[in-house]
Amino acid sequence: MSGRIAVIGLGPGDPRYLTAEATGALAAAEALYGYAPYLDRVPARADQSRYPSHNREEGARARAALGHAAQGANVGVVSGGDPGVFAMAAAVCEQIETGPEAWRALDVVVIPGITAMLAVAARIGAPLGHDFCALSLSDNLKPWPLIERRLDAAAQAGFVIALYNPVSRARPWQFSNAIERLRRHLRPATPVVFGRAVGRLDERVAITTLGEADANAADMATLVIVGTRETRTIARPERPPLVYTPRAAAEVSA
Amino acid sequence: MSGRIAVIGLGPGDPRYLTAEATGALAAAEALYGYAPYLDRVPARADQSRYPSHNREEGARARAALGHAAQGANVGVVSGGDPGVFAMAAAVCEQIETGPEAWRALDVVVIPGITAMLAVAARIGAPLGHDFCALSLSDNLKPWPLIERRLDAAAQAGFVIALYNPVSRARPWQFSNAIERLRRHLRPATPVVFGRAVGRLDERVAITTLGEADANAADMATLVIVGTRETRTIARPERPPLVYTPRAAAEVSA
Repeated sequence: MSGRIAVIGLGPGDPRYLTAEATGALAAAEALYGYAPYLDRVPARADQSRYPSHNREEGARARAALGHAAQGANVGVVSGGDPGVFAMAAAVCEQIETGPEAWRALDVVVIPGITAMLAVAARIGAPLGHDFCALSLSDNLKPWPLIERRLDAAAQAGFVIALYNPVSRARPWQFSNAIERLRRHLRPATPVVFGRAVGRLDERVAITTLGEADANAADMATLVIVGTRETRTIARPERPPLVYTPRAAAEVSA
Repeated sequence: MSGRIAVIGLGPGDPRYLTAEATGALAAAEALYGYAPYLDRVPARADQSRYPSHNREEGARARAALGHAAQGANVGVVSGGDPGVFAMAAAVCEQIETGPEAWRALDVVVIPGITAMLAVAARIGAPLGHDFCALSLSDNLKPWPLIERRLDAAAQAGFVIALYNPVSRARPWQFSNAIERLRRHLRPATPVVFGRAVGRLDERVAITTLGEADANAADMATLVIVGTRETRTIARPERPPLVYTPRAAAEVSA
């Protein structure tokens, strides 16, 4: 069995975020599968077939790519950000576990990428400079009460919180509920960063506070970072402010 | 003021993890500062000065680099992994906040990189495929009881846990204490991944369980990922196993 499937992290969207390894894997693939807007970031080549698909079809996309690889092909599955963070790597593993035995013989490679929280954090300073967590607000795959429990636990224990998938057309109320929930635990002055489409032409990064955060300011392409009581904002007269969380914490910081 | 300071993420250690942006920033810098083993990864150039320093000198290193940039230079500070994750970006922000006013006028750029947990996760499948947290076990900068509280909170709420800095010569007991602590909340069968020096010649990635995890198997270069009750291991007859955490969670998973 010579088939190979590479799950390739494209990073946040600009080619400058691509690693050398991802560039090499994109070049080596005979076929590319992926959510159409991610595939659109990869220049088309006559000798490389392309199979775009819709969002929320991760399972079917992974099965198609695995089936193709099982024919002996070198197949790439492109993923925004890092494939291991709320993206395609888990979907591919799920299908390998439940699919034909032959899929377990494939060479499976996951190629890491810059996930959104790292890109947004870098744009604004170092808000993830201390212990932090990454939490998807999508309740398509888990019940909302579990998300609330995790928000409570993270805020009470003093983790910086990176929120993925804050809203979508089908999930309009989740993010405002999450903000309300976090206000129970964290002070109104807690810094909050909204980072949208980092590295793309329509990039927008904004700093606010938990007290003033407006849930309507987030959309599907937004990553939100909520600080702790230690997180600080540095005003700079001629530059945008920096937001960072100090490396040291003196006590329980919730 | 034309000074510029770029905090550059080198990723886990092999050039294949470098982003195009990091490669460009390394090329553009007139001077490079960093922990000596990280600087050693960057080929020396006659027209680029280098200022290696020891570990645990982050504050002094950041001050020296900022002072150099304030003279109008384009200065790079290299960081292993991602500069924003337990690395140099927060140290630079701390010094900007407390240092001379002129440092606030500098152009500050943070260039994200592949942090260790993403590289280790990619090597083994998708263990971070669901909500997760990143926690440093170093109690140099925070009290141990706060670390225990965070371990409890993360395990009880069902976050996958990435442990940075599990041990060092000066901190021999912290990691075994952390394992004991997690055993109060998680089943012995919970998958645990030890990833050491990923992407380097001495790379070693091992899968075990929380019940069988041996604290002595970790050193300073090890990143540990502790799964949840949902995390699964896929046996593959002709390949190493895959570890992944499914995207879906049915209920509170601690």
